[in-house]
Amino acid sequence: MRNLEEKTISTQSIFQGRVISLQVDQVELPNGNTSNREIVKHPGAVAVVAITPEDRIILVRQFRKPLEKTIYEIPAGKREAGEDPQVCAERELEEETGYRAGKWNHLVSFYTSPGFADEYLHLYQADELGKGQVNLDEDEFVELVEWTLPECVQAISRGDICDAKTVAAILFWQNQLHQS
Amino acid sequence: MRNLEEKTISTQSIFQGRVISLQVDQVELPNGNTSNREIVKHPGAVAVVAITPEDRIILVRQFRKPLEKTIYEIPAGKREAGEDPQVCAERELEEETGYRAGKWNHLVSFYTSPGFADEYLHLYQADELGKGQVNLDEDEFVELVEWTLPECVQAISRGDICDAKTVAAILFWQNQLHQS
Repeated sequence: MRNLEEKTISTQSIFQGRVISLQVDQVELPNGNTSNREIVKHPGAVAVVAITPEDRIILVRQFRKPLEKTIYEIPAGKREAGEDPQVCAERELEEETGYRAGKWNHLVSFYTSPGFADEYLHLYQADELGKGQVNLDEDEFVELVEWTLPECVQAISRGDICDAKTVAAILFWQNQLHQS
Repeated sequence: MRNLEEKTISTQSIFQGRVISLQVDQVELPNGNTSNREIVKHPGAVAVVAITPEDRIILVRQFRKPLEKTIYEIPAGKREAGEDPQVCAERELEEETGYRAGKWNHLVSFYTSPGFADEYLHLYQADELGKGQVNLDEDEFVELVEWTLPECVQAISRGDICDAKTVAAILFWQNQLHQS
């Protein structure tokens, strides 16, 4: 295997925000030439596939300013510094939906946009759901829905479900139904 | 359904880069309060699920500076302004891998990180593969591999496959095998 690494020559910090920061790295390419890489730093995230006993997935309807659209997503949230991903997932599920889960399984972890961002998302499955306490952030406004798999497939066709983690969640669910 | 929209009060442009740009919008929340949203603008992307007649998926080994890691991804690339997504997918598949496909199907489109970025990715399936011509960008260094589904599942466990679009691609492939 070839060494494809790009060595950092210099890093210029552009922006430090509340959620993300931005830097531009000058890098040495494998052939010795130089180039610039624009890099967004993100604290990381978790998301939860929660299926009710009635075989419906819990989704959160939420306005997303970057898209200027209100879309349906699985419950998710940013990690706090040093927070264990599963603890974060348990917290986010309860805060956003009012559900607690008796059983947790890690499904997969992935980078959402490895070309320009380091956001790393841990996807969990939550089972044995029971009632907890909703507690939204002060700038968070959401509505809950619970949809069957065919309803989710239709929502993907319509574009109401249109984000990577929720599409992955539904594909996992579909696969599990095929296997069971 | 409640109106969850956040109205833009003002937009501050922070950075205009080669690939992405960054702005901070001050918004009016549904309850009348104000907040800031940090927004990355991206030209959009395409990615390709290409399965060989030997039932192997074509992957590209590539160093990703935001992760400081070399990972395996399905062939993908950024859209040029006004470019049709399928034309872009055909171009990227051939440029990165040297494969052309006789048959194209759109699988799904999704936002990779709707919380902070508008990157929209179109995922295609490419069939009836034949030989074309590799033509990499001058700052693009990649190696090709072709893996079976069990090899991909192992690579996900190891963390060598760790990006959203490639995980989605493998879940689609798994689902298709279950259905056939």
